[in-house]
Formats: sequence, C-alpha cells, structure tokens
Amino acid sequence: MVSQKEYKDIHQKCLSYFEKAGIVLTQNEVEDLEVTDFGLDRVQEMGLQLVVYVNTERCCAKELVLLPRQTCPEHTHPPVGDSEGKEETFRCRQGTVYLYVPGSKTDEPKALPPADKKQYYTVWNEIVLKPGEQYTISPNTPHWFQGGEEGAVVSEFSTKSTDENDVFTDPEITRTNENEA
Amino acid sequence: MVSQKEYKDIHQKCLSYFEKAGIVLTQNEVEDLEVTDFGLDRVQEMGLQLVVYVNTERCCAKELVLLPRQTCPEHTHPPVGDSEGKEETFRCRQGTVYLYVPGSKTDEPKALPPADKKQYYTVWNEIVLKPGEQYTISPNTPHWFQGGEEGAVVSEFSTKSTDENDVFTDPEITRTNENEA
Ligand SMILES: [Zn+2]
Ligand SMILES: [Zn+2]
Repeated sequence: MVSQKEYKDIHQKCLSYFEKAGIVLTQNEVEDLEVTDFGLDRVQEMGLQLVVYVNTERCCAKELVLLPRQTCPEHTHPPVGDSEGKEETFRCRQGTVYLYVPGSKTDEPKALPPADKKQYYTVWNEIVLKPGEQYTISPNTPHWFQGGEEGAVVSEFSTKSTDENDVFTDPEITRTNENEA
Repeated sequence: MVSQKEYKDIHQKCLSYFEKAGIVLTQNEVEDLEVTDFGLDRVQEMGLQLVVYVNTERCCAKELVLLPRQTCPEHTHPPVGDSEGKEETFRCRQGTVYLYVPGSKTDEPKALPPADKKQYYTVWNEIVLKPGEQYTISPNTPHWFQGGEEGAVVSEFSTKSTDENDVFTDPEITRTNENEA
C-alpha cells in the first residue's frame, strides 16, 4: 500500500516531471494521477505512476512516470477472449528508460531489479530509450523496465488496457491490489 | 502540391512548434515530417503536418501540427472490411484547436473554412481544445478541425490509420494525392 504521505510526495514529484517535459494535464487528470506499488509495499523500488488519457475497447494512451531507478516488474499481456493481448509502444519523452525484452542477454545491463527479486526477472535483452526514442512490445511478450538516474516520462500507446489480465512473474504481485502497468 | 520552398518553410515552423511544446523527435522523424495540402494546392489554408510515431495493425499514434487558422478538411473514417473504421482521440498539447463534429450547430463558431469551400463542411458542433484537453471521435463520424491564431500541436491516439480509406466531403480532394489526416 502507498501511504498518504508517500502518495503526496510522489504526486508532487510527478507534477514537476510533467512540467519539465512540457506536458499539460487537466485538473481532473492531476487529481486522478495513479501511484501503484503492485501490492509490494516498496513503491520507490517497484512502482509506477500514470495518467490514463483514454482507454476504449480499441485503444489506449497513457503518460507514465518512473522515479529514479524505480522498476515496473516483469509482466506479460496474454490473450484474453477474442483478443490476442495488449500491444504496447513506449515512447520516452524525458529522462532514460531501460527496457528489457526477450532476446540475447545483454552483458552488464544498466538496470537491475531489487536483489531479492532477481529470480522473477527472466528477460534480459536491453533496450535503452532516450527522449524521442520508442519501442513496440508485441502481445504476450514478457517485459520490464526501470527509470534511469533522473527518472523518466514515457508515453504509452496501446490497444485496450485491462490491467486485471496482466500476468506478473513475481507471485507476490496479486491482482487484488490496484495494479497498473 | 507543396513546393519545396513551402515545405522547407513549414518544416522549420513545425520544428519550432515541437520545441516549444517540449516534444523531442528523432532525426529520422524530423526528416520524415509530412506536410499535406490534400491535393488542394492551398496548404496554408487547408493542410496538415504530421509525424507518425507508430501505426500497426491495431493502433496508431501521431503528432499533428496545425498552422495558424489552417484547416484539416471534413472527412470520415468509414468501416473497412472487418473493421468498424478508425477511432481517433485528439489531445491538444499546445495552442488551440477548434474541432467540429455532428450535433447541434454552434452559434457563431470560432472557426470557418475557406468561404469557397463552405458547402463541404456539414458538421458544426464546436469543441474547443486547449492544452491538456482531448476529444474522442467514433468511427464513421464526420469531423474537421482548425488551428487557432497561434496554431496548435495535437497528439492523435487511434486505431490503425489507413489514409486511403478516408472519405472527404470535398470532391476535389482525391486519394491520388498523399493525403494524411
Ligand atoms: Zn506492459
Ligand atoms: Zn480524422
């Protein structure tokens, strides 16, 4: 759980990240900014902040904020019903994002998950995204990402987002919490 | 057709709009920036500038620039094959956009199309978008839009973009030109 004090502190940081990135939000969006710790109670290490712009049956756009060295844990978006699963494009707007996907393991990766969670991180092909750079993740493909030393602002363009269907590698992450990724 | 001189001039303007909006593009995106006059040869009045970030079978994201008082002519995205047609969300990032959709006619609309083209503009319900504001257009719904006095930068989040299927109200706009909207 994210305490009220922590939420306020992170919320304020996000607003300054958005301001620095030139991203304007409505008052409602500012108030609805989501902070999730994936139920792990270690939000500064493993968490994500986001504003959902639109999420219809067909497409979705969000603005994400990663705090410095904050990790969004490894997960996949599996097929659901008639849909082949969520497809995501991450476009870095500010800072640096280290994104990991299936493929040959990168030697000396620039990001590491918390040491006690390492067993739940199985893909190690590193994609480094700087402002203006982007990467598209196919459905049903494991991925995780971490903000660089200065954090990051990332636009996500995707098909419909149904967080309750996301599958996390870490069994401690349960869908009873309000997870968003 | 957009002359090379005009293209260069508009291209330069777009880069300064993007810079002012804090939007970072890769060198490839800068080089691939599209300027379309919809085949009408009056690009300052009726035209659109755009950078396509991603356009897969399932979703699409673009950054649009409207010059001051430049109009994107009325069009619809009809059903194509199994798809019900393109769904679009426009999010204003900078400047003002006047967007027109079906509904009760707005008295004294803040934008007008070129006088000699007025008969090809049939929807007059005005939506004004300032930075941070957005509007979602359902498939197969006529719409047109115009930049305000200072132009505008607009993010478009949508399903797959297939410009060749767009239907413009103005019969002078033909799909033999490289139209983008
Ligand atoms: Zn994901
Ligand atoms: Zn359109």
